[in-house]
Amino acid sequence: MTEDGGRRGAGPAAGGGRRSAEATRAAILRAARDRFAADGYDRATIRAIAADARIDPSMVMRYYGSKENLFATAAEFDLRLPDLSGVPADRLGRELVSYFFTRWEGDATLPALLRTASTNPSGAERVRAIFTTQLGVAVGRVVADPTEAPRRAGLVASQLLGVALTRYVLRLPPMVDISPADLITWLAPTIHRYLTDPDPASH
Amino acid sequence: MTEDGGRRGAGPAAGGGRRSAEATRAAILRAARDRFAADGYDRATIRAIAADARIDPSMVMRYYGSKENLFATAAEFDLRLPDLSGVPADRLGRELVSYFFTRWEGDATLPALLRTASTNPSGAERVRAIFTTQLGVAVGRVVADPTEAPRRAGLVASQLLGVALTRYVLRLPPMVDISPADLITWLAPTIHRYLTDPDPASH
Repeated sequence: MTEDGGRRGAGPAAGGGRRSAEATRAAILRAARDRFAADGYDRATIRAIAADARIDPSMVMRYYGSKENLFATAAEFDLRLPDLSGVPADRLGRELVSYFFTRWEGDATLPALLRTASTNPSGAERVRAIFTTQLGVAVGRVVADPTEAPRRAGLVASQLLGVALTRYVLRLPPMVDISPADLITWLAPTIHRYLTDPDPASH
Repeated sequence: MTEDGGRRGAGPAAGGGRRSAEATRAAILRAARDRFAADGYDRATIRAIAADARIDPSMVMRYYGSKENLFATAAEFDLRLPDLSGVPADRLGRELVSYFFTRWEGDATLPALLRTASTNPSGAERVRAIFTTQLGVAVGRVVADPTEAPRRAGLVASQLLGVALTRYVLRLPPMVDISPADLITWLAPTIHRYLTDPDPASH
């Protein structure tokens, strides 16, 4: 629970009285994302999420129906990948890696999703859908042969999610201590190669 | 629970009667690794692990003291990394990646450890220790400047654990479908570069 989350709407808003339905839904989603991030899917309870959002647990169920559905909605996020189609080929790796750090550094959503996906089948399905569709589409726009897009997106995901895992979830000291600028320099050629090198399977 | 695990020592062995202490400990560890892999740390219970090992839960506690201690011991594994110091520099990447697949393809230990480490602080600490010491030492033997070994080992871990995450835990379809031979061809130059490229931070 964030400081802000704990104080927001205390008192009069309890029970959703003065909040619009939209504001209530947003407060629930914020609280759910924080809780799933901190506790993982299994330990995060509807009761705790409702307490964080300062509303009654029955309201959470009224708006979202079930914990699984709440998670699916909380994790229904947009990677907001940039359109890379105008980027010169030799800048693709650096552009995608830089974007990754701009987006995820200091945002707990991706670690939360990885934690949940590691131990929960619907969390894993959610991550598969997000990366297959969004990253697959972004990569498909820039690779020479679109039929190779899924495999190239998979390889890109293996490195970027590996960074997310080691830096934000497992917190391996050398991966935590390295600056984003140095990490970008290390990772850009890797991502570039996954996007542009000939596929060994096509030979 | 494996078929074998379920049948091994049924009946007379229940309670550990005819088993040596060593065989009992080994049976508990096997059952614990299977359970932690299947259910994750939080949901895996001492009771279920004891049932899988066909012994009384009190024996598990007698041998291991606590669930956390049992997990720490079950995860106290040896990566059994090869000594790379005799490998020619231009083969290092391929050698390490090939080894990785020989070791982990079909072995559920690493996914189990990643699942547990993603949601449990002592699991994360265990992974940090394993990768810092074992991978750090192996990498330290082959890099030009040993002071750079931790960072290079961290980068190698970010890619190899990213493959473990996307292939064995999240099961992203393109990462599941790709053959080990193709994956090795894709990953070897990445690992090679992390081991041998000049560190941008040292410039």
